[in-house]
Amino acid sequence: MMNKKDFSIVCIGAGNVATHLAQALQQKGFHLSQIYSRTQESAQALAQTLGCAWTTCLEQVDEHADLYIVSVKDSVLETVISQLAHCNPDALYLHTAGSMPMEVWKGKFKNYGVAYPMQTFSKQREVNFEEVPFFLEANSPQNLSLLQEIAGSLSPKVYEASSEQRKYLHIAAVFACNFSNHMYAICQHLLQAHQLPFESMLPLIDETARKVHELSPVEAQTGPARRYDKNVINRHLNMLEEEPKLAEIYRLLSEHIHLYETTNH
Amino acid sequence: MMNKKDFSIVCIGAGNVATHLAQALQQKGFHLSQIYSRTQESAQALAQTLGCAWTTCLEQVDEHADLYIVSVKDSVLETVISQLAHCNPDALYLHTAGSMPMEVWKGKFKNYGVAYPMQTFSKQREVNFEEVPFFLEANSPQNLSLLQEIAGSLSPKVYEASSEQRKYLHIAAVFACNFSNHMYAICQHLLQAHQLPFESMLPLIDETARKVHELSPVEAQTGPARRYDKNVINRHLNMLEEEPKLAEIYRLLSEHIHLYETTNH
Repeated sequence: MMNKKDFSIVCIGAGNVATHLAQALQQKGFHLSQIYSRTQESAQALAQTLGCAWTTCLEQVDEHADLYIVSVKDSVLETVISQLAHCNPDALYLHTAGSMPMEVWKGKFKNYGVAYPMQTFSKQREVNFEEVPFFLEANSPQNLSLLQEIAGSLSPKVYEASSEQRKYLHIAAVFACNFSNHMYAICQHLLQAHQLPFESMLPLIDETARKVHELSPVEAQTGPARRYDKNVINRHLNMLEEEPKLAEIYRLLSEHIHLYETTNH
Repeated sequence: MMNKKDFSIVCIGAGNVATHLAQALQQKGFHLSQIYSRTQESAQALAQTLGCAWTTCLEQVDEHADLYIVSVKDSVLETVISQLAHCNPDALYLHTAGSMPMEVWKGKFKNYGVAYPMQTFSKQREVNFEEVPFFLEANSPQNLSLLQEIAGSLSPKVYEASSEQRKYLHIAAVFACNFSNHMYAICQHLLQAHQLPFESMLPLIDETARKVHELSPVEAQTGPARRYDKNVINRHLNMLEEEPKLAEIYRLLSEHIHLYETTNH
């Protein structure tokens, strides 16, 4: 076992994932040495909650850390990595992106991998890491076991996944989380327009999520699209006439539910 | 207060809503006298769990009940109602449909209303009625207060809603429940194709539902569409190339999330 106090960590990025991860690692006794963010505001905000150093300049990233965790937008990941060349060649380097392959590290460092925390992080909301599944990949068995030790100190749900599998985890998570949350947003929009409280929908939202712990989503499906009740579907489409994008979403999803019903997915 | 044992109820319909409602009413001490369903199989199955009579013939519906609850497909509701003309003229008549106006009862009976339980019911899964909001409407203050007493014995969450409001509750519920559940179904489909367990998504699904208890759905939104990370979005669209309908859903919802971000819904 490593000595967590002497194991120093630099976080590159100060967005939702980096913020929660850095705080959780510190709470577990790791030494957070520095936060990098492109903007001073984010870097400083996170560094203050951690009581550690910060920088907005990649060249000034602490070169003596044991672990570098890069949590930045996918589009800048490779550029950021290429600017860490001055950092500790013996350290472990990780990124946290669902859709980026491990091989972005190849040829840059000796010890590297990926730790993808599959959860939805918002800065305003605390995260219980016990309920965050981590999907890990590393470039050697030794690095994988170090990574398992670190991730395992945060969560009991630690899995291995290849870069290829992680891509599909990520896209599946976009549907299960980002798109279902957007369905809640549309729901709120429709209710607000008719002076109805979104709050009254929470029991329905909760039960919809709870049901798929016991039934498969296809078994759990209910509603006019499942029954293919064209009366209701057409009445709803008429109600959405003035919001053609919502009507299009309604039509497309109803047809797709019917497709899954009839092809026995 | 009514004497529940002497208050006899007929359920017209034996689908998901009727099944859970009839069982819950019986558990609360009401007298279930008869179940009607178009098919013998459904009528008999529900009547057996309740230990009451059943029929598949509308003309044979018990004419002496105090309450008639009609839970059938919207498309047949009016036809069914027109065939109950022989039943107790003093009884209370209810339907449970989100999208059907109360006025379908007008001119047919003296006492009528609607009790819309806004929840997702599956026969395979128990329902905790304490967590089912009921939206009520009745044709007189007396009938409303009787209805409040009946619904209030099942759930503490009893609201009033006009037929017009109920239409919007229903369509909003289709988005919050039916469509978000379909997002889980697509998620499972994508995972299965890559030997990944749907189970690993449950913490993410649960947290997505829990978040909107504290944040509005627009605040709670995360993911590539919120960041409008075109790199990730295009990579995901490429991954879905062989399933053009999924690609279309992905594109449409990502654009719509971006629209809500930028117009500050």
